[in-house]
Amino acid sequence: MAGYTKSLKKLIEAFGKLPGIGSRTAERLAYHILKSSREEAMELAYAIRDVKKNIRHCSICFNIAESDTCEICSDPGRDGSIICVVEDHQNLLALEATNEYNGHYHVLMGHIAPLEGTGPEDLTIDKLIERVKKYEVKEIILATNPNAEGDMTAFHVARLLKSTRVKITRLARGVAVGSSLEYSNKAVLADAITGRTEI
Amino acid sequence: MAGYTKSLKKLIEAFGKLPGIGSRTAERLAYHILKSSREEAMELAYAIRDVKKNIRHCSICFNIAESDTCEICSDPGRDGSIICVVEDHQNLLALEATNEYNGHYHVLMGHIAPLEGTGPEDLTIDKLIERVKKYEVKEIILATNPNAEGDMTAFHVARLLKSTRVKITRLARGVAVGSSLEYSNKAVLADAITGRTEI
Repeated sequence: MAGYTKSLKKLIEAFGKLPGIGSRTAERLAYHILKSSREEAMELAYAIRDVKKNIRHCSICFNIAESDTCEICSDPGRDGSIICVVEDHQNLLALEATNEYNGHYHVLMGHIAPLEGTGPEDLTIDKLIERVKKYEVKEIILATNPNAEGDMTAFHVARLLKSTRVKITRLARGVAVGSSLEYSNKAVLADAITGRTEI
Repeated sequence: MAGYTKSLKKLIEAFGKLPGIGSRTAERLAYHILKSSREEAMELAYAIRDVKKNIRHCSICFNIAESDTCEICSDPGRDGSIICVVEDHQNLLALEATNEYNGHYHVLMGHIAPLEGTGPEDLTIDKLIERVKKYEVKEIILATNPNAEGDMTAFHVARLLKSTRVKITRLARGVAVGSSLEYSNKAVLADAITGRTEI
């Protein structure tokens, strides 16, 4: 890369490490930063810093949060007696976007996948059981991804919750088996919430 | 964007302002930053900061530089008696990539474009004349873009340099190597016929 300066080379490399950004796009983005005003450029730098500095996990549900509890857990307008169990924050967002659900969530932080070396102990299942025992929870909706790992995780959670006698439901099979919640459309997800069935 | 935290929203917005990055890609990039280690994420933030802090223009040729003079101007292995005049740094890079040129450059920082309100006084032409008068320059290669604005700029620079009696050349015009006559446009073919060379 003759003719580049050291800082510009580093910026091109840093952009190139982002997913889906090839070397040509990385160059174009670095030039954009080079040409834009200091304020505009630093807006992105500060936004990255703030995300790494401010975002943590909600102490109740493990959703992302900027204080001890997340926006959903601290919202008095939401029904804390229903907990929707999801694998990660992106799946939580997909469900929120349907505007069909007004309860709380529990983010497992992954799924059970023996081949990837992820067991139940790597998830936040014990915290979910604690929540169910401690607070008055009427219903648990298992909304893991409708694929092998998600199902395995859901059945494991359901078995552990059996003794608590809480009502356990799962999303209706409106969602396509083998797909991922993140990429399912709103109508499909809304159908799945409305038609959830007891297991 | 319900369910996002403030910092994450800001980061998605900042990514979305980059050229060619849509809202879906901005979301994906922001999640990548959220999930990656602090070190990896801050590498990009620091690279942006360093580009804005360290990069300035070379005091001789207006190429980008991290000290008073750029890498090319301060390279003793390069021939300072030939100056290749380009519109911007990206064009300089394109010429450098050929490995065919070992002289110096002069970056005009744009082109004459009356409709855009850019006149000769907005470019670094006066600094080029100064260089030619001050140093022993044998040849000026006009390598502005081969379009209306580039040609106008080149002719203007050539007229101003006439009194200095320096040799002025411009890039050869003709059909592009690897292209096909059938798909070359009329202007390209006309240039190629006018400038035909004996073999």
